[in-house]
Amino acid sequence: MERREIRILPIQGIREARPGDSVAELVLEGMERTGLTGEPGDVLVVTQKLVSKAEGRLVRLDEIDPSPLAREYAARWERDARQVELVLRESVRIVRMDRGLIIAETRHGFVCANAGVDLSNVPAGYAALLPRDPDASARAIRDELAARTGWRPAVIVSDTFGRAWRNGIVNVAIGVAGLRPVRDYRGERDPFGNELRVTVIAVADELAAAAELAMGKLDGCPAAIVRGYAYEPGEGSARELLMPAERDLFR
Amino acid sequence: MERREIRILPIQGIREARPGDSVAELVLEGMERTGLTGEPGDVLVVTQKLVSKAEGRLVRLDEIDPSPLAREYAARWERDARQVELVLRESVRIVRMDRGLIIAETRHGFVCANAGVDLSNVPAGYAALLPRDPDASARAIRDELAARTGWRPAVIVSDTFGRAWRNGIVNVAIGVAGLRPVRDYRGERDPFGNELRVTVIAVADELAAAAELAMGKLDGCPAAIVRGYAYEPGEGSARELLMPAERDLFR
Repeated sequence: MERREIRILPIQGIREARPGDSVAELVLEGMERTGLTGEPGDVLVVTQKLVSKAEGRLVRLDEIDPSPLAREYAARWERDARQVELVLRESVRIVRMDRGLIIAETRHGFVCANAGVDLSNVPAGYAALLPRDPDASARAIRDELAARTGWRPAVIVSDTFGRAWRNGIVNVAIGVAGLRPVRDYRGERDPFGNELRVTVIAVADELAAAAELAMGKLDGCPAAIVRGYAYEPGEGSARELLMPAERDLFR
Repeated sequence: MERREIRILPIQGIREARPGDSVAELVLEGMERTGLTGEPGDVLVVTQKLVSKAEGRLVRLDEIDPSPLAREYAARWERDARQVELVLRESVRIVRMDRGLIIAETRHGFVCANAGVDLSNVPAGYAALLPRDPDASARAIRDELAARTGWRPAVIVSDTFGRAWRNGIVNVAIGVAGLRPVRDYRGERDPFGNELRVTVIAVADELAAAAELAMGKLDGCPAAIVRGYAYEPGEGSARELLMPAERDLFR
């Protein structure tokens, strides 16, 4: 029987990104250090943190003047008022604000803790914001890789998000280029002849999750290649991964 | 530089399970057909559907007498009243019931669509229920594999769940044996010396998601091996993947 196999290849030795750096260049340097060569059909997953740093999306907390709401909420729950202020500024809608947590909708439409504002894996005194347009970031990485080397992987920008009802965070896709992020089985039939009615798989999120297993959190490994997964090519956008408001029972 | 790599190996050629079948035996038959041999450190992911069928958790819809609530909701939203009735019977709490959807908490504590009652990939006229105790199912598979062959992988029983706010379903772990399902980074430090305060990764869910990429939905491939992931050994339980009620902002 033909052996199918998917491989997850961490890209090691990527140096710390500075504002203005090319993510494509950092990835290619890391691939060379790791001894990896790109292949057709690869999916490249890069973390939001790497992209945000290269795009200069770090903010000095010292320069943030918290609003009264941010001050009060931070004092009540022993949080940093400047981070709370940044969360409010990055949000277009507060979904829940209780017990010290803030679950918010970002400009991109993502619903996540702290609107993606993150104090980990950044220098002390700084916060990292999400990229302004993670789809555009993914497209730029893909185009630059193709221009430099001819290798044109699908690209996913990933971040770790919490979930309602489930403990722990998982890696998901917040930016996509070159692949259709959902696999739509609706109208197809299972082996019993039943039409599949509601089966839309968020494959870009599963690819991001798979990559996280290889990247880890402490290893300074912000990118990985998923090889051997037959994704559906397409322009793609992380917007396809957003629950439409009219179907959202948890606004 | 040392090359780390994770491999996802689908187990093909597994025959349709009948009540009373041994999942371990079906998996070993499939591994032989696929030309796969188990290795130390492997994680075996098997779908809920395979386990439920082997455990006789299929129900004939003809034998279900729907309650008035099930009848009314089904009529209003053009659903099968018998399935709605099964969903209500499998639930301990209805989280949302609107627009034809039912998001419910199961006896196990999972919050998911239709309390896990599923009409796809089963013979027409039947519905599949979740295993009664998916952790126990995973343990039994692990123990039987070890007894038959000496191969003792960590085992995850998986199902595809929807998410609040995100479009599409993803594979998650509903039963676990032999690995700690969450990786807890709290108290560790990132490369900048910041203490990581809220980083608990649901690695069992990421392993399930990775396996789904290899299994697909239509291929009749209900199991996969994830090889090369350094999981933390432990008894493990999918209960660790449930959000504690006191921290759940979305009850």
